[in-house]
Amino acid sequence: MPEDSTPKGSLYGLGIGPGDPELLTIKAHRILTSVPVIAYPTMENGKVLARAIVADFIRPEQIEIPMPLPFSVERSSQPYYDLGAEKIAEHLAAGRDVAVLCEGDPMLYGSFMYIFNRLADRFHTEVIPGISSTFASAAMLGAPLTYRNDVLSIMPATLDADTLRDRLAVADAAIIIKLGRHFAKVKSVLEELGLFDRALYIERATLPNQTIKPIASVEPDQVPYWAIVMIPSETKPS
Amino acid sequence: MPEDSTPKGSLYGLGIGPGDPELLTIKAHRILTSVPVIAYPTMENGKVLARAIVADFIRPEQIEIPMPLPFSVERSSQPYYDLGAEKIAEHLAAGRDVAVLCEGDPMLYGSFMYIFNRLADRFHTEVIPGISSTFASAAMLGAPLTYRNDVLSIMPATLDADTLRDRLAVADAAIIIKLGRHFAKVKSVLEELGLFDRALYIERATLPNQTIKPIASVEPDQVPYWAIVMIPSETKPS
Repeated sequence: MPEDSTPKGSLYGLGIGPGDPELLTIKAHRILTSVPVIAYPTMENGKVLARAIVADFIRPEQIEIPMPLPFSVERSSQPYYDLGAEKIAEHLAAGRDVAVLCEGDPMLYGSFMYIFNRLADRFHTEVIPGISSTFASAAMLGAPLTYRNDVLSIMPATLDADTLRDRLAVADAAIIIKLGRHFAKVKSVLEELGLFDRALYIERATLPNQTIKPIASVEPDQVPYWAIVMIPSETKPS
Repeated sequence: MPEDSTPKGSLYGLGIGPGDPELLTIKAHRILTSVPVIAYPTMENGKVLARAIVADFIRPEQIEIPMPLPFSVERSSQPYYDLGAEKIAEHLAAGRDVAVLCEGDPMLYGSFMYIFNRLADRFHTEVIPGISSTFASAAMLGAPLTYRNDVLSIMPATLDADTLRDRLAVADAAIIIKLGRHFAKVKSVLEELGLFDRALYIERATLPNQTIKPIASVEPDQVPYWAIVMIPSETKPS
C-alpha cells in the first residue's frame, strides 16, 4: 500500500489533573492506558510534573516522548515545541495514537496548546478536560468560591502590580496562580486593596506534600511555583 | 453503647463533571460507588441533572435523598437547603457516609456550597473537585483559553449589561455561563465591545445532545440554561 493510505493516529490532549493520580478522569485513564505513545513536557527546575502524576499507570511497552522545555522564560520555547511536535507527528503519520500529558486542564496556561496549535489542523485531535489546580485548591481549602452573580478572575502572579491591582479590584472572587518569587508583590497589592485578610494560601494542592498555612505566616522567599492564593467570594447567601 | 459514641459519617461534596459520565474522576467514582447514601438536588425545569449523569453507577441498595429546589429564583431556597441538610445530617449522625452529587465542580456556583455551609462545622467533610463545564467547553470547542500572563474571567449572564461590559472589557479571556434567556443582552454587549466575532458558543458541553454552532446563527429565544459563550485569548505565542 502506498504510504499515504496509512490511517493516521489521533492526537489526545490529556488533562491529568493537579497532582493526585486519583483525580484523573475515567476517560483520561482509559486513553492513557490504551495509547501506544505518550508525550509530556519536562523541565529541570521541577515546574513540570506531568509524568510523575501518572507514573503508576504507564506500562513498559508504551513509547515515551519527553519534550524538554527551556528553563529560562527569556529563552524562546518555539524551537522546543517545534521539535516536540515533529516527533509526535511522526508517530501520528505512522498511524499511532499519541496522548500528550497536561497537568491540570489542557486549555489553561498549558504547554499542550503549543502542540495543539502546531498539529490540530493536520491530525484528528481530541482534548480531554482535566481538574484544574485552581478549582482543586478551593476544594482542598474547603472554600466555596463563587455564588450566583459573582465574577471569578484567574490571573498569574507574573502580572505587574498595577494590572494585578486593577483586575483584583473588580473581581468578586479571584485565584492567583504561579506565585513563586512573585509572592511579595502579590501580598503588597492584596494589602493595598484590603484583601489580605480574606486571602487563603495553598502549596501543591492534592500532592502528597500539599501545604496549607495562614497567608500571614508565608515567607516570601520560600514560595514555590506551585502555590496559589485564593480570595473566595464574600457573598454568603443562606 | 450511648448514642453519642456512634462514629459519625463523613460528608462528601462530589464533583461529577459537566455531563459525560466518563468525566468523573477515579476518586469521585470510587466514593460514589462505596457510600451508603447519595443526595442530589432536583428541579423540575431541568436545570439540575446531577443524578442523570451518574445514573449508571448507582446501585439499588444505596439510599437516595433527592433535594428539591425552588423553580423560581424569586422564591427563597433557604428552607429547601435547611430540609436537605437536615435529612443528610440524620444519616451522618447515624454513622453513614453521604455523598452529595454536584454537577461540574462543587465550589463554583453550586448548590453543594449551601449544604457545606450548614454541615461542614459539625461533620467531617471532604470536597472532591470535578471537571467544570467552563473548562470542558474549551476542550469541546478546541479553543485554547489562556496563555502566559492572560487574565481569565468567568461570569454569569445574569449580570446586568453594564457590569458585563465592564468585566469583559478588562478580561483577556472570558467564559459567560448560565445563558438561557440572557443571550440577547450578552450578544449586544459583545457587539458593543467588538468581541462578538471572537466569541464561541456551545450548548450542553459533553452531553449526548451537545451542540456547537456559530454564535451569529443562535436564536436568542432558543438558548438553554446550559449554554456557554467563550471568548478565548487573542494571545497566540508560537
